[in-house]
Amino acid sequence: MPQSIHDLTTPALLVDVDTFEHNLRTMATRLPGRRLRPHVKATKCTALAKRQAELGHVAFTCATLREMEGMAAAGLGEDLLLANEVIDASRLARVDARVTVAVDSAATVEAAARGGVREVLVDVNVGMPRCGCALDDAGRIADLARKAGLEVRGVMGYEGHVMPIQAREERTEATRVSMEKLLSAHEQVGGDVISAGGTGTFDLNTWATEIQAGSYCTMDTEYTKLGLPFREALTVLATVISVSERWAVADAGLKALATDHGNPEISGAKVWFCSDEHVTYAAETAPRPGDRVHVRPSHVDPTIAKHEALHLVEGERVVEVWPVDLRGW
Amino acid sequence: MPQSIHDLTTPALLVDVDTFEHNLRTMATRLPGRRLRPHVKATKCTALAKRQAELGHVAFTCATLREMEGMAAAGLGEDLLLANEVIDASRLARVDARVTVAVDSAATVEAAARGGVREVLVDVNVGMPRCGCALDDAGRIADLARKAGLEVRGVMGYEGHVMPIQAREERTEATRVSMEKLLSAHEQVGGDVISAGGTGTFDLNTWATEIQAGSYCTMDTEYTKLGLPFREALTVLATVISVSERWAVADAGLKALATDHGNPEISGAKVWFCSDEHVTYAAETAPRPGDRVHVRPSHVDPTIAKHEALHLVEGERVVEVWPVDLRGW
Repeated sequence: MPQSIHDLTTPALLVDVDTFEHNLRTMATRLPGRRLRPHVKATKCTALAKRQAELGHVAFTCATLREMEGMAAAGLGEDLLLANEVIDASRLARVDARVTVAVDSAATVEAAARGGVREVLVDVNVGMPRCGCALDDAGRIADLARKAGLEVRGVMGYEGHVMPIQAREERTEATRVSMEKLLSAHEQVGGDVISAGGTGTFDLNTWATEIQAGSYCTMDTEYTKLGLPFREALTVLATVISVSERWAVADAGLKALATDHGNPEISGAKVWFCSDEHVTYAAETAPRPGDRVHVRPSHVDPTIAKHEALHLVEGERVVEVWPVDLRGW
Repeated sequence: MPQSIHDLTTPALLVDVDTFEHNLRTMATRLPGRRLRPHVKATKCTALAKRQAELGHVAFTCATLREMEGMAAAGLGEDLLLANEVIDASRLARVDARVTVAVDSAATVEAAARGGVREVLVDVNVGMPRCGCALDDAGRIADLARKAGLEVRGVMGYEGHVMPIQAREERTEATRVSMEKLLSAHEQVGGDVISAGGTGTFDLNTWATEIQAGSYCTMDTEYTKLGLPFREALTVLATVISVSERWAVADAGLKALATDHGNPEISGAKVWFCSDEHVTYAAETAPRPGDRVHVRPSHVDPTIAKHEALHLVEGERVVEVWPVDLRGW
């Protein structure tokens, strides 16, 4: 294992241990135990999930079959929710875990039953144009599921459209509107579980019984705008490879950094653009070839998914390397 | 190996064999042998590179150390150009291949010499704010390299800013302006090689001795706008998992598709947005859950880099699976 970040091949994902621990402990205090169902899609790392489990969160949220399989194989299968619709659920029958799947249609109910799944949540659309049945359909889907022999644990509804709202009062009000829908669906559906939320609404969403948050572990420049009690722990370490009069180029580009939430940031510099393997930027103090630079991602989930490992660091010392072992499908 | 695309886990990268072969043969006719130095960064696949070598292109371009190592290990090391600056070239000393590296500063010349590299190209900035020395510096860098015991094979200069220009005459003129700079640098530097170009200028750039093109193999929606003789061969196969009155959702999102050149496209539909594992779109004919849909990427390079394999297909039949084995750094 490299002892120093200076020995790492770049680009390399770094996680500042102190900040990361602050984030995990803050969340475990605010939403202890099963009040949080950590979403592993953000970090795709079973070693990281084990740390969350040590802090009391033993039920997890996944987005893909690979994440479900990997979490079960890592011994983290006490209560795994696939918070996504699947048409071929056959791989889930072989997962050694308590498996719950989201359903929002007759087809996904059938798929769950055919795939040997035993438990489901009815996924309800609460305002974002993505998955989830219409509010008025929730009871019907629950009935279909029960007729197919499935245990209906409750409802889920992700208020994803609320996350980017920066003003806290507006975000609270939009969450309330979404959760009114989900509670109304829950009246039709029954069950103990009302699963919703994310990092941006973790403390505003007081209606859900459990919150599906993942990004809080490392944060990113976008989530940082919300004024949450979590801090940026993730950077992409890059090496300056070319310097000209007006700009510099470091070796972390589109293949190392997601740009769907905008360009990444470099402290004390203005990022111009990313290309496949490069970030071009203008720094206040001109760097020299060979300098290392910390690039701050704008969107954690698709950034981490581009890398093979998270390097946990204390200052410039690499203290642990965690494989990003839940990539792919 | 799955026999049909219907057996594939989605999202999955598909390459239409006939279209792909058309693209490779068209390029091999227009730029035979060493007139093309295929860039492997676009496709990151040694099996694909072998097909290019079979058609006569035995000298390749790489962007990363991992690509250099992988190409050499696959027996494709006759003449590998790392068309990028590196500060730590030590891994290149262990690559069993003819290795040439781009240099644009004293620091990168020193790194090449220290790393045991024998041959370099002087990288010249020809108009895009990225790597490459200033025109007036090219002779000095070449002298530094020769003093350090390196063989200077010539110059390279990537006219990347020219690629998106859709009007062919404007693209030609912008290429001419860039290549005038490169030829002027070549007069200072000497050597046999003038390496430049890409898919968008493959037939306009008549000044370079070799063209670095990679995207032509599979194309994407962005390159297709240029009216080149290559056709889109690449799609991301996705499964429709949720359908509502106004939109549908398929299971290929930001982790399966690059969006830096805009949203992907779905024929007969309007794509609304991508999230981590989903594409939300409105189709002319409403799909049903379980339907398969072909999503057309807007940028081939960072899309392929998100996947583990290319599935070569004839219609719905999977005829070969090629690992995307040059990912990472």
